[in-house]
Amino acid sequence: MSSNLDPLLSLIAKLPGLGPRSAKRVLLHLLKHRERLMRPLAEQLATALDTIVACQECGNLDTHAVCHLCADPKRDRGLLCVVEDVSDLWAMERSSVYKGLYHVLGGTLSALEGRGPRELSMDALLTRAKRPEVREVILATNATVEGHTTAHYISDALLGGRAKITRLAQGIPFGGELDYLDEGTLGAALQARLPA
Amino acid sequence: MSSNLDPLLSLIAKLPGLGPRSAKRVLLHLLKHRERLMRPLAEQLATALDTIVACQECGNLDTHAVCHLCADPKRDRGLLCVVEDVSDLWAMERSSVYKGLYHVLGGTLSALEGRGPRELSMDALLTRAKRPEVREVILATNATVEGHTTAHYISDALLGGRAKITRLAQGIPFGGELDYLDEGTLGAALQARLPA
Repeated sequence: MSSNLDPLLSLIAKLPGLGPRSAKRVLLHLLKHRERLMRPLAEQLATALDTIVACQECGNLDTHAVCHLCADPKRDRGLLCVVEDVSDLWAMERSSVYKGLYHVLGGTLSALEGRGPRELSMDALLTRAKRPEVREVILATNATVEGHTTAHYISDALLGGRAKITRLAQGIPFGGELDYLDEGTLGAALQARLPA
Repeated sequence: MSSNLDPLLSLIAKLPGLGPRSAKRVLLHLLKHRERLMRPLAEQLATALDTIVACQECGNLDTHAVCHLCADPKRDRGLLCVVEDVSDLWAMERSSVYKGLYHVLGGTLSALEGRGPRELSMDALLTRAKRPEVREVILATNATVEGHTTAHYISDALLGGRAKITRLAQGIPFGGELDYLDEGTLGAALQARLPA
């Protein structure tokens, strides 16, 4: 192939889920659909670079310094859902169940990778969680060792505060078949069993 | 998620191999690595849009009106390899075996999709193939029904000309195990058997 396209190709190959081969397919597809796809994509990328910032309140990505969720008067300011990452916030929003505010930590505590509270937006969380209007802090970190550690750290730090501290339920996923579930999930679901 | 990112997200989701979910992952990855990945990508896309053109000789994509393969004095001008698409040209180049020139048809003949010779660069091929220096035209269309039809059409059209007309060998792929091959491939390999 033309070496002139190599820099672009190697950038595309760096995107998650793409490799050298699929990057070539993407690049050819782009070059075949220049006006319909490639030009709008280049323009939208440039626009997003110029306009998208992290919300100064919750860490969500938006065009405004205070994101559309934090600015929405219809969201319940008494609820604060703590997530690791913006992708988790989006996943929560997809479920359309939660109507409170968020706090994006920017990762988990990790001794192994040398990430302490200072590498995350932990101070900002503790400050927000102590606001008088906050009734409940929902810990929605991932169900991984690091996620649990981080949730423990936060619930310790907020101990004795006004707000109730809760975490997402663990159990059998929707549509899950017992035979295919790992023992950890099944054990946790058993221990957390509810009256039928 | 922020509706401001929706246009970008839906463009990313249109790339081959990506769906709504993986597009979100790609978008977040880009927003996390703005300076290292997102900005260079936007710039390289814009540059490619401005500079990459189809080679007026063979149809390859390059920054020059005559591509670096057609312009290369070391390539054998007596060999003309006919491929359906630029991706096939790149695949041939990866094998590093072929040292002649190419001709990109831009697809296959297809009654079903209403693609006749005029929708492809067929006239240009027939003109090029009749040049006195061309000794051999190698038909390297895909081993599909449309690919075969297109190859037949070309070999008919070039019948009686000076150039030899050949096509890629069909048979067992490198590393192929008989048990896993389809009957068509196995049958063709048997019929095309060679002295050991």
